[in-house]
Amino acid sequence: MELLSSTNTSPLTPLGFLERAAIVYGDCTSIIYNETTYTWKQTYSRSLQLASAIKSLGIGCGQVISVLSPNVPAMYELQFAIPMSGAILSNMNTRLDARTISILLQHSESKLIFVDFLSHSKVLEAFSLFPSNIKPPLLVIINDDDCDDLVETNGSNPLPAVDLDMTYEELMKKGDPYFKWIPPQSEWDPMVLNYTSGTTSSPKGVVHSHRGLFIETVDSIIYWSVPKQPVYLWTLPIFHANGWSFTWGMAAVGGTNICLRKFDASTVFSLVNQHDATHMCGAPVVLNMLANEPGKQPLKRPVQILTAGAPPPAPVLFRAESLGFIVSHGYGLTETAGLVVTCEWKPEWDRLSGDERARLKARQGVRTIATAKIDVLDVESGLSVKRDGLSLGEVVIRCGSIMLGYYKDPIGTSKCLKENGWFYTGDVGVIHPDGYLEIRDRSKDVIISGGENLSSVEVESVLYSHPAINEAAVVARPDELWGETPCAFVSLKSDSDQPSEKELIEFCRNRLPHYMVPKTVVYKEELPKTSTGKIQKFVLRDLAKALRVPKARLNITFRRSHKKAQAFSFIQMKTNMNLSFV
Amino acid sequence: MELLSSTNTSPLTPLGFLERAAIVYGDCTSIIYNETTYTWKQTYSRSLQLASAIKSLGIGCGQVISVLSPNVPAMYELQFAIPMSGAILSNMNTRLDARTISILLQHSESKLIFVDFLSHSKVLEAFSLFPSNIKPPLLVIINDDDCDDLVETNGSNPLPAVDLDMTYEELMKKGDPYFKWIPPQSEWDPMVLNYTSGTTSSPKGVVHSHRGLFIETVDSIIYWSVPKQPVYLWTLPIFHANGWSFTWGMAAVGGTNICLRKFDASTVFSLVNQHDATHMCGAPVVLNMLANEPGKQPLKRPVQILTAGAPPPAPVLFRAESLGFIVSHGYGLTETAGLVVTCEWKPEWDRLSGDERARLKARQGVRTIATAKIDVLDVESGLSVKRDGLSLGEVVIRCGSIMLGYYKDPIGTSKCLKENGWFYTGDVGVIHPDGYLEIRDRSKDVIISGGENLSSVEVESVLYSHPAINEAAVVARPDELWGETPCAFVSLKSDSDQPSEKELIEFCRNRLPHYMVPKTVVYKEELPKTSTGKIQKFVLRDLAKALRVPKARLNITFRRSHKKAQAFSFIQMKTNMNLSFV
Repeated sequence: MELLSSTNTSPLTPLGFLERAAIVYGDCTSIIYNETTYTWKQTYSRSLQLASAIKSLGIGCGQVISVLSPNVPAMYELQFAIPMSGAILSNMNTRLDARTISILLQHSESKLIFVDFLSHSKVLEAFSLFPSNIKPPLLVIINDDDCDDLVETNGSNPLPAVDLDMTYEELMKKGDPYFKWIPPQSEWDPMVLNYTSGTTSSPKGVVHSHRGLFIETVDSIIYWSVPKQPVYLWTLPIFHANGWSFTWGMAAVGGTNICLRKFDASTVFSLVNQHDATHMCGAPVVLNMLANEPGKQPLKRPVQILTAGAPPPAPVLFRAESLGFIVSHGYGLTETAGLVVTCEWKPEWDRLSGDERARLKARQGVRTIATAKIDVLDVESGLSVKRDGLSLGEVVIRCGSIMLGYYKDPIGTSKCLKENGWFYTGDVGVIHPDGYLEIRDRSKDVIISGGENLSSVEVESVLYSHPAINEAAVVARPDELWGETPCAFVSLKSDSDQPSEKELIEFCRNRLPHYMVPKTVVYKEELPKTSTGKIQKFVLRDLAKALRVPKARLNITFRRSHKKAQAFSFIQMKTNMNLSFV
Repeated sequence: MELLSSTNTSPLTPLGFLERAAIVYGDCTSIIYNETTYTWKQTYSRSLQLASAIKSLGIGCGQVISVLSPNVPAMYELQFAIPMSGAILSNMNTRLDARTISILLQHSESKLIFVDFLSHSKVLEAFSLFPSNIKPPLLVIINDDDCDDLVETNGSNPLPAVDLDMTYEELMKKGDPYFKWIPPQSEWDPMVLNYTSGTTSSPKGVVHSHRGLFIETVDSIIYWSVPKQPVYLWTLPIFHANGWSFTWGMAAVGGTNICLRKFDASTVFSLVNQHDATHMCGAPVVLNMLANEPGKQPLKRPVQILTAGAPPPAPVLFRAESLGFIVSHGYGLTETAGLVVTCEWKPEWDRLSGDERARLKARQGVRTIATAKIDVLDVESGLSVKRDGLSLGEVVIRCGSIMLGYYKDPIGTSKCLKENGWFYTGDVGVIHPDGYLEIRDRSKDVIISGGENLSSVEVESVLYSHPAINEAAVVARPDELWGETPCAFVSLKSDSDQPSEKELIEFCRNRLPHYMVPKTVVYKEELPKTSTGKIQKFVLRDLAKALRVPKARLNITFRRSHKKAQAFSFIQMKTNMNLSFV
């Protein structure tokens, strides 16, 4: 059968969801932001108008347009308007510094950048770092008449909202709201360029196709069983993997997008109740902040919260559920455009104790229906590990939403998109006997103590179960004898007594194998975090290294030499791998 | 970006849903049929075992395997097992006669046929009609120990259940339940060959790819908002477009499949209540049968019912809703693998009267999210018709679930899959000002009276609103003066007085433009139907033709000559078009 025609090969793209939302949900609310609201008809027409205006600037198909903005209405519109103009959308992390912004803009050869007014001076500084022979992109300022926390948000003086550069609304006025948007020629055409937040090293540009984003978006509606017309609170920054592709997903189901400029636990509680929010997303640290918020309001009704981005400690899941959040947990990377593994809940687990339920839910789970395959491969042999919940290996994935590759980085691309058809995630996990995946660590976060591979996440999970602990992160500390030992960094709850280092170590010793117990505990007011709320372990690793190296106390040899070989492979991998999610 | 790799191009296919269901829903019930039940682990393992056994017969990739079976457990398993063996699945309509079966088996060059024991003798008769130089396929009998209505189902004596041919369970025993199923080499590889039921002319073989069926299946879960673990009652024959692709859909969401050998309204009510069924599908005629069932039980809880396959008269929708069914309505064809247009319900419509709600719901609606585009094109100009709810044109579609083409029929294929990228459905419809599509007729069912195009469905809808009418169908009756006039065939409810022809005509005259009022009413005990429950209008057209041709009563010329030209185009189309759904 060689019968492909332009009828059945019409390119898959999530962009058409908006056009459809304007028909089906035209008069329903698309966006709420403080006092501003839009309907789906308006969001469609504004996106078309802006796409048309972008095109009128002479910016052509396949060129990159950047955005540096929090979750305000313009940010949502731009997720459609930029690719509808034929250009490639590149969201940037608002917490990046001027130097990094400058590097990324040069790397992407961006022609235009949309900038939230509070980041204006930072972007001008980034421009000033351009070499004289390279022209910075055009700049369009996103003003915000509805921003009520200007001073809070940024202590320094932002530039005046209006100056020589064009504003977002001025540019839009130049466009035609009846513009015919430009669909991709091929579904494999690139649609977005997402720079990973880069927990450790220089960011990489993840390129996704229209097809990949279509697949991820429909998949995400199914794995989370998102009904029609949900009320979605944008706690997850849109600049993280396009809000795990829920930007387009909300247009597919005609949801209401509740925008907010920055995450703040107390604001979240009041917005949820004010708008009857039904759904929200966030990294585990967000769940923890909600659970620990002293001014939290009781939820008027249960709220679905989807968490991913880092292995969530079971106690954090448990606490969030006790507040009335219905927690779903999954796993994905910027390279997969959103979640590709979710912890599908089994009805029989409802009967288990809260602790046991949280332990099961802390596992990343099983592949979503649009994910073709996942596996965990032994680092030495490259074969599937035993499904015993114990054998560590690298998580690999095969699916339609895997990126096209890293922009301008064929070597980096070939290191993770391998010829055997697997995408190598750089994450270390196990498969349980029931087929559920559990991530144990980033390969670079694995601690190798006395030849044993030790999951920092497992130690953290125990620390989180201590009532005084607010946050915990465990990293390797160099050790003459053991190679590495676990070193715990913790912050404490404001209302609790400070347990001594000895008490905490004792607490762990009662709950963990001896070799996993932290040998050192360091107290911090707050742990250093990336813009996504992930704890920056590379900062902590540096701190741990700087601690005085302990003298050898025991004369002991490595217990298992094969483990040591495995350890060396992991270390080698660290130099190759640079993948992270949100 | 030329970065396609075997990682992100892993072929889309719905077959992987079953493997996943065995992990996620392993111990949950997959199938219930009378006293027989299976779990998802069992369904997966049995499908693998059967696929392996098929392969051991030496039947290779890309060869066709046929199935002639009602909705029993084996039928469900075969939707996976056959394509998992690498072969192409061809379900056949169980109501076909031996001659047609023989023609289809020769056309498809089928190598193997699975036959329900009640159809055994018919298939042997079909084999006897093969030319002597062509070898019929191997035959495997599906026995049914759980069939409790053998005599009712088939008055004639079926052959003994076991004879020289192999049985389904015997074949399965030859297979390996740990077989590694054969994924498609390319997502464009053909997976199914569905012969259309052919309301009017010789059947055509619709070929769908793995990709098309994947897209349709995920789309169907989203448009109907199917939750996880629904209880799905198989009122819709699986041999109709693989049960609108819900065969694979149920594996995707881990539903329970309630199988039943044949549709019977009273059985349906008791199965719904016995198993707490949540979802079912059926043509409008099924809704009508449920509504008119004298022994109907009150529903214990609301049941989602999805209807498609023919334009449903508004009164039928209304009656079904009053019984507690939540009716969703959509539109698709065998050529689209399932529904591609659905009547998305707007919350504001809830406030309207029951009649008004039913009228709105009788419209086919808007494209689903995986459907790229639909339009209605003027037959003469080929341009989009006005969105006024009045201008008739042919419905055209562009989407990823459009068939690859008709098997061995490039001319038929090129007539509907046109170079301009549209699939021409052969259905006639309008677009309302709100963007919703409404099908007015099959192009061949349009009646052209005095140069006016007249939708038979609109007339039928009025007849259905008469309290005495059970079923109604309106067809063209040749007329010397008018060219054609509407002729109504009706069956009456058993408990109602028979309204006279004059009364019915008067009833229509008060509700329709004069030219649309039937000039003739014919009373029938029951209207002739296809196996899918569609009324066979070609039979009625023949009956109408055989009525004495009325003499010219008035001397009148065609009112609009351009309409006549349009009429001729429709007639010409009739010879080309041969598309039908369910």
